[in-house]
Amino acid sequence: MSLDLRADPVDLTAALVDVFSVSGSEAELATLVREALEKQAPHLEVIRNGDAVLARTNLGRPSRVVLAGHLDTVPENGNLPSRREGTGADEILHGLGTVDMKSGDAVFLHLAATLSSPRHDITFVFYDNEEVEAVKNGLGRIERELPEWLAGDLAIVGEPSNGVIEAGCQGTMRVELRTTGKRAHTARAWMGENAIHALAEPMRRLAEYAPRVVDIDGLTYREGLQATKIGGGVAGNVVPDSAVLTVNFRFAPDRTPETAERHVREVFDGYELSVVDMSPGALPGLSAPAAAELVAAAGGHAAAKLGWTDVARFAALGMPAVNFGPGNPTLAHTKQENVRTAEIRQVTEVLRKFLS
Amino acid sequence: MSLDLRADPVDLTAALVDVFSVSGSEAELATLVREALEKQAPHLEVIRNGDAVLARTNLGRPSRVVLAGHLDTVPENGNLPSRREGTGADEILHGLGTVDMKSGDAVFLHLAATLSSPRHDITFVFYDNEEVEAVKNGLGRIERELPEWLAGDLAIVGEPSNGVIEAGCQGTMRVELRTTGKRAHTARAWMGENAIHALAEPMRRLAEYAPRVVDIDGLTYREGLQATKIGGGVAGNVVPDSAVLTVNFRFAPDRTPETAERHVREVFDGYELSVVDMSPGALPGLSAPAAAELVAAAGGHAAAKLGWTDVARFAALGMPAVNFGPGNPTLAHTKQENVRTAEIRQVTEVLRKFLS
Repeated sequence: MSLDLRADPVDLTAALVDVFSVSGSEAELATLVREALEKQAPHLEVIRNGDAVLARTNLGRPSRVVLAGHLDTVPENGNLPSRREGTGADEILHGLGTVDMKSGDAVFLHLAATLSSPRHDITFVFYDNEEVEAVKNGLGRIERELPEWLAGDLAIVGEPSNGVIEAGCQGTMRVELRTTGKRAHTARAWMGENAIHALAEPMRRLAEYAPRVVDIDGLTYREGLQATKIGGGVAGNVVPDSAVLTVNFRFAPDRTPETAERHVREVFDGYELSVVDMSPGALPGLSAPAAAELVAAAGGHAAAKLGWTDVARFAALGMPAVNFGPGNPTLAHTKQENVRTAEIRQVTEVLRKFLS
Repeated sequence: MSLDLRADPVDLTAALVDVFSVSGSEAELATLVREALEKQAPHLEVIRNGDAVLARTNLGRPSRVVLAGHLDTVPENGNLPSRREGTGADEILHGLGTVDMKSGDAVFLHLAATLSSPRHDITFVFYDNEEVEAVKNGLGRIERELPEWLAGDLAIVGEPSNGVIEAGCQGTMRVELRTTGKRAHTARAWMGENAIHALAEPMRRLAEYAPRVVDIDGLTYREGLQATKIGGGVAGNVVPDSAVLTVNFRFAPDRTPETAERHVREVFDGYELSVVDMSPGALPGLSAPAAAELVAAAGGHAAAKLGWTDVARFAALGMPAVNFGPGNPTLAHTKQENVRTAEIRQVTEVLRKFLS
């Protein structure tokens, strides 16, 4: 079997979907991608790192764009092999990875083989283990082992974004709020102090919290402060002496981790908080020249990215970085994963226009 | 080995403590109790039922008093064998069961052997498995198999009560309050509905709840409404769609199970509640003649029983029933379990006066 990179990127998406590549099992797909790039894109320097494949032009252009997509998928859920439905503008491609994110990979691979003289130098990064724990993430490994392969003036991560440029991403932190009390038998409750009752006030603040809606570079970010877990209790007849509320704060990228933490501590002033998890956001960076050109090629429209994606890794390297890929992100990780094939072609054309 | 029922009830308490009888292992102690009663209290009819021993006078008196005590203890906790400390009025007996409730058993056994012609007929019930699940409770088995052995005009359960007559007992019920919502990614929280946030209002009601203090037959009962457990949460980045708050209501015996449930449903009006556990309370019944005589013998003082004990089983049979035994109930089930020996003698004398 081999991949035809020069054919229709929709056909290429279907071919990629039909090569099983759940996280940890990307070897076969990585081999096929490397072979196809070596044969069909001889103008590129190609290397393999683990189950990632890296390729780049070395044309001496004044700027470099990095196109990054992960090769792995979440586990199969009765949604393989791929199948098509409908025709023309209504055609739909169904199957695991059609959205997250083999359609984005197909766009990048097609451009790799068909753009031999782009306006910017291009680095292609097809990596492994994005859908599992962050420590396994192939992009993190490349950052440690081959950092020069991630350098550039703009990063485009092909995660599904409905074919709209999504810029920046929100940060996320998790805190645990712990209340303490004093155990007693519930028949003599006045001798104790109920730690669950002590959560009533922080839960009131949480329920009444009005999240910010923030405008940055013309993009709108909606923050959120949400309880994700609550727990406490000793026995059916005991006043509990400990309870824990876990809260997830999704914050707009105008906050740093430090100011985000300060804000949460203000909201829950008077309570014992510990930060258990923190990932910074990424500013959209759309004023950088290459980013502004890309937005223009896409018709001038861009939106705020709300979730946390690998865009933030590039932002942390000081590069403007955006998500841009076919598919509706709310279908990612669902059994029903599917993409309009017209969207795959549209994203291909926007990127071709930007890079040509 | 044999038990000397006619000796000092403090010595008898120590002897009972030194026979290991954690719940399920009462056979040896039951055998010793039966042998001692048959030899040293020949005026009694004695039978064994499982690991319970029952004994009674058949004197044709116009009234009958039931004296009931359980033979089992909670597990050993480095507090065997018994040991004494101090002298005279300050003497303390330490050890597993000194409070809960081998001192009460010793008082009853001593009276069984030394009161051959009591003023009331007396039934003695020494039973097994009180400290474990209610389905194993020896008193429940006797009620099913030998109900005539529990009949009488007054029941005295020898549970620790600081040597004070404690009358009636509070009821207890547990309810689960469940909130539901709609899952969503926390990055798009406005697409979901947070079930933990929905607990804020019922928790406010709980924290602000003012429990009743009720006077019945001159006794004061303090009610309580306490969260004993809380739980909810799906994952660190998911708006949870379900949460559960477990609440324990301890209610004064002027409420029936039905009116208690209605009250809790009023407090949490608008929320989904399910009753997971219900034990009725017991009215003190101190106006019944035998009960009034007992209170007089004790110097006229009685207090409200707050916890739920087997007193409620007798109350459910329509009998006035009280707790009356040596020892501080807050030491029950602790490693430090100990009793002032003077209290054992005092309870013995009050009961001797009442029954002679």
